[in-house]
Amino acid sequence: MAAFYIGMDLGGTTFKALAVTPEGTILDRVQAPTEASQGPEAVVQRMVEAIRGLAARVTTAERRLRAVGFGVPGILELPQGIVRRSPNLPGWHDVELAALLRRALDVPFTLDNDANAATLGELWRGAARGKRDFFMLTLGTGVGGGVVVAGTILHGANGYAGELGHTVVDPHGPPCGCGSRGCLEQYASGTAIARMAEPFYGKTTAREVALAARRGEIPAQQLYRQVGYYLGIACASLANVFNPECLVLGGAVAQAFDLFAGSLRQTLRARSFGPIVDRLELVVAQCGTDAGGLGAAYQAMQAYPPAASSPRSQP
Amino acid sequence: MAAFYIGMDLGGTTFKALAVTPEGTILDRVQAPTEASQGPEAVVQRMVEAIRGLAARVTTAERRLRAVGFGVPGILELPQGIVRRSPNLPGWHDVELAALLRRALDVPFTLDNDANAATLGELWRGAARGKRDFFMLTLGTGVGGGVVVAGTILHGANGYAGELGHTVVDPHGPPCGCGSRGCLEQYASGTAIARMAEPFYGKTTAREVALAARRGEIPAQQLYRQVGYYLGIACASLANVFNPECLVLGGAVAQAFDLFAGSLRQTLRARSFGPIVDRLELVVAQCGTDAGGLGAAYQAMQAYPPAASSPRSQP
Repeated sequence: MAAFYIGMDLGGTTFKALAVTPEGTILDRVQAPTEASQGPEAVVQRMVEAIRGLAARVTTAERRLRAVGFGVPGILELPQGIVRRSPNLPGWHDVELAALLRRALDVPFTLDNDANAATLGELWRGAARGKRDFFMLTLGTGVGGGVVVAGTILHGANGYAGELGHTVVDPHGPPCGCGSRGCLEQYASGTAIARMAEPFYGKTTAREVALAARRGEIPAQQLYRQVGYYLGIACASLANVFNPECLVLGGAVAQAFDLFAGSLRQTLRARSFGPIVDRLELVVAQCGTDAGGLGAAYQAMQAYPPAASSPRSQP
Repeated sequence: MAAFYIGMDLGGTTFKALAVTPEGTILDRVQAPTEASQGPEAVVQRMVEAIRGLAARVTTAERRLRAVGFGVPGILELPQGIVRRSPNLPGWHDVELAALLRRALDVPFTLDNDANAATLGELWRGAARGKRDFFMLTLGTGVGGGVVVAGTILHGANGYAGELGHTVVDPHGPPCGCGSRGCLEQYASGTAIARMAEPFYGKTTAREVALAARRGEIPAQQLYRQVGYYLGIACASLANVFNPECLVLGGAVAQAFDLFAGSLRQTLRARSFGPIVDRLELVVAQCGTDAGGLGAAYQAMQAYPPAASSPRSQP
């Protein structure tokens, strides 16, 4: 009997689930609105229904669902599986998500932060294949982070580790939703780029600013160079701390990599130890919006390897 | 046959070796000037002589030297054991220290950065006993760092990880010896404290400023509060990244902990995620200047456990 896994990427507006083979081939997928305002029980109910529907489509006489992995936005306490708070899931405070899932699901599952799941997705099937020490920044609405140390996701004492987007890059910088000031998220997220562009372009988006930069508009080009500068400050500190093989940049903002790669590299070179920066590869994520689902599935597979119950399953 | 270990802490001006039992009891010690200017071969020769002398004093019919651990200042490439550069050992560039030691020593040995060794010393016999996730800052002439992740020192891809003193806390801050600006080392080292105090006290030392603060002098007290503020910025970022159980502060400056603990705690609280800072203990190192030697010995013992060759050695 062959196994498949489901990786569920829970987002603030939609959740997406992928059915994946142990080799990482995506068999099928499903997506639905999260409707977080209806509360955790309702969201769990909807996710479990989506998982059942997807599993039913993919299950065959030869292939059964082995385990499900969840990637969840917010500050997740591990191993208890409690969502302490989540900027993307309003009203979720100290939600015992693992307990809710245990009641609703009849297969084993794993839980992790969504940025950690995306990092594992890139490790398994993307830009960090074969790496043992790297970190990933997901530059989206916010800035998510994940760190792999000696092949394993860094969880810290309570599962909260990896909040790289809240590395302070300027102590006097703009206030951040986390309570600090001048966090990387205030300079390198899509939201921050739109905010920094407002004096020049009025209400806009990071994507529109990138288009303006590509048309040759100086303020938009300078703005992306500034993004690279602040990213460089955070990444120089993080490189000095982790001495990683590579740094993976994902999320929508990373699609403008060419617009900020120069100032990022220059700042990294100026502010990080030579022997460290000499070995540091900068790469753009390859799994796109599938990274979270793939990584969640990978984590479920690590915890619940393909069953070896039948000799036929071992080729 | 019982074993003992020697932990060698190589510093810029002196080296210190401890003979230590597998239980962490210090049997004897030796200290001598490094005389780094005479070059790596001469320094290795002098260290090996000191180790032989110390071992001869401690060896008995029942107790033999099993292995030696070295803690070395500077950017050390592992597992090759090459000192890429070292601010404390002038002229040491790309020194193949492991190869030199292999030729000169007839016992097995381990090599690590001195700040990593000190961190392991505190893990084994000091303020971090029993911890699995923590980091240590050694506030001395510079600011050294070591990180323990799931019980193991963080080495990164090439052994260079843990340069926490070169976390940028203000991108526009004073230039740092590392080539960057506004590194933590420029605000929280003894050298930095003396520099910041100069406008108020003329040429002075961090220790003299601490004494002035204890006498009630406002500028000196403010200055140590500022040290706590900048330490807090770096530690908030690092806590968000690592979610450690505790933060150990060592080095001479940490003896003034009471003078900066308030502003450090306040800044940490304001700039780090609540669930992270709620679990974070702040502790002062307990092994003093023995931390490096103890940690180096501990690392040698981890790599070369007490021999089980004779049944009598297993009680």
